[in-house]
Amino acid sequence: MENGDVPEDANEHCPGPQSESAGKSDACEGCPNQQICATAPKGPDPDLVAIAERMANVKHKILVLSGKGGVGKSTFSAQLAFALAAKDFQVGLLDIDICGPSIPKMLGLEGQEIHQSNLGWSPVYVESNLGVMSIGFMLPNPDDAVIWRGPRKNGLIKQFLKDVYWGELDFLIVDAPPGTSDEHISIVQCLDATTVDGAIIVTTPQQVSLIDVRKEVSFCKKVGVKVLGVVENMSGLSQPITDLKFMKLTDSGEQNDVTEWVMEIIREKSPELLSLIACSEVFDSSGGGAVKMCSEMGVPFLGKVPLDPLLCKAAEEGRSCFADTRCVSSAPALKKIIDKLMETNGLSMLVSNGV
Amino acid sequence: MENGDVPEDANEHCPGPQSESAGKSDACEGCPNQQICATAPKGPDPDLVAIAERMANVKHKILVLSGKGGVGKSTFSAQLAFALAAKDFQVGLLDIDICGPSIPKMLGLEGQEIHQSNLGWSPVYVESNLGVMSIGFMLPNPDDAVIWRGPRKNGLIKQFLKDVYWGELDFLIVDAPPGTSDEHISIVQCLDATTVDGAIIVTTPQQVSLIDVRKEVSFCKKVGVKVLGVVENMSGLSQPITDLKFMKLTDSGEQNDVTEWVMEIIREKSPELLSLIACSEVFDSSGGGAVKMCSEMGVPFLGKVPLDPLLCKAAEEGRSCFADTRCVSSAPALKKIIDKLMETNGLSMLVSNGV
Repeated sequence: MENGDVPEDANEHCPGPQSESAGKSDACEGCPNQQICATAPKGPDPDLVAIAERMANVKHKILVLSGKGGVGKSTFSAQLAFALAAKDFQVGLLDIDICGPSIPKMLGLEGQEIHQSNLGWSPVYVESNLGVMSIGFMLPNPDDAVIWRGPRKNGLIKQFLKDVYWGELDFLIVDAPPGTSDEHISIVQCLDATTVDGAIIVTTPQQVSLIDVRKEVSFCKKVGVKVLGVVENMSGLSQPITDLKFMKLTDSGEQNDVTEWVMEIIREKSPELLSLIACSEVFDSSGGGAVKMCSEMGVPFLGKVPLDPLLCKAAEEGRSCFADTRCVSSAPALKKIIDKLMETNGLSMLVSNGV
Repeated sequence: MENGDVPEDANEHCPGPQSESAGKSDACEGCPNQQICATAPKGPDPDLVAIAERMANVKHKILVLSGKGGVGKSTFSAQLAFALAAKDFQVGLLDIDICGPSIPKMLGLEGQEIHQSNLGWSPVYVESNLGVMSIGFMLPNPDDAVIWRGPRKNGLIKQFLKDVYWGELDFLIVDAPPGTSDEHISIVQCLDATTVDGAIIVTTPQQVSLIDVRKEVSFCKKVGVKVLGVVENMSGLSQPITDLKFMKLTDSGEQNDVTEWVMEIIREKSPELLSLIACSEVFDSSGGGAVKMCSEMGVPFLGKVPLDPLLCKAAEEGRSCFADTRCVSSAPALKKIIDKLMETNGLSMLVSNGV
């Protein structure tokens, strides 16, 4: 990335499209971009200047990344936004998952539209101090596939950073799609001239997920984004025993629902079991999970969040889990993680300063 | 897509880079690609011709897609490959998730390398009738991030299709990354001249996942790929009651492990419970799940697979769940789905014909 905008498949000794000798040096012979490079205007990208101006009003920028999809990254981003807004911060949540935006649903904002003013695009507001921007607000039909190759996705991300009028923000949380490709390179390049606090990486305890998270940590190191910490999500299922169903396998392999019968037995013979929480290790963490990976890669571990069906439900319904007293297993875990994040990164100062 | 290679952000009336008037028509004035289009060679892409030749030896091509990541797409692809290989078909599994390849791990092939012969790149073989190709076999360090923008990913996918020597195949299963972007457009364009049987779309019952799966169905319709069916994965957790852990919440909110105490009580008072399967609806499916979505969108529903920790473990260890007698809840469900897929698409004919 140190070469700036030099394409990865450029000729050897490519002087870079921003250089004065772009398209004119010996190395440019035969390059299909020679003509464009020779004639394109030089100097800093005016878009980056505009982005830097917009971002001057944003105190802290946090990226939320994951190597693999479906690990709960958007759920975490959404709950982090709710939590910070509940602390009276001015919060913006930017969804740069162009092909699969989940953020509108997770903030309870489906069907909302973006409005335009002479200051730029207005975010959609959950509350007066929590604004949200996503391509999901721009699709005429929510079922439409956004079949876009990289350059078009990058263009929209640039526009989100340049044209959205957030006003003054304490925090801008950027929810990225999984992986390490166009969207990630673009967001980092676009924010390069501003200060990014760092990235939170979300994973599950599975080996396949941890392999990808290592790639994500490598990515952050390569592009110079600090890893604020890793969150292990879906770290075992955890729910009231009374929420379980019980099945009996018949000889022919069919399953019969015997939940009522079981509950009767428990109520009769051992009612002390009714108040318990049943836990299950859904994803094998015998490899040591994210804790071990973090110590190996030298990045902070922020904590574990159990797979809590009630948290999933809150996310699906666009609600904060912190306002849901039934999320007994997930909400305290998430709260601890967010507190740790704030503390270890000097962000809790803000709270005591009343910012 | 009907315009072939016309970039989506092209000038109005762009004649297309393959046209004889490319770069020369009035519409090309001011387009940054004008020079390239005017001078680039015309005619069919020679790579597509080479791909069609390779694919002439492949009887059936099936794409495995998902809108959202982490829904178990790669697990399904891997188990489908195992199942078809167990039926004595000649099977190839191609992983085109460039930034997050999970397939090597899920086939138990981590650390393997690709070899080259004068026939092309040789896949890595699990068994003599099950070959696998993935960028995961090409990374010098498995932690390395593949920080590639679209064009480079597309180049590798082309090369996979053009240069891998599969030999004669009954089935080529292509495991795609989530979404509807570069990799998806590329694979469909590259295979356009050959016959693709269709796509299997994997989802979970969650609303956020179903939103994305609708986009995936739209994508298939737009690019003319038949939807062979939708699989609902992680459709409730299902596991032996004896595999659960039980926790007691203390007044201070801590959780104490009381599993041994609970098991003792059950053994003593109601041992009939020990053989039961505990089920939990992890992801809310009150919206009707994939069944409803399928009937609304007019695509076939193939079946549900429960979230089975033992299936997750088999996948993590690169094993077939069909060979694991403990996968009582997931293996029969997967088998039913694969049988249905074969039947409804005329593929079971092959079996009875002894192909």
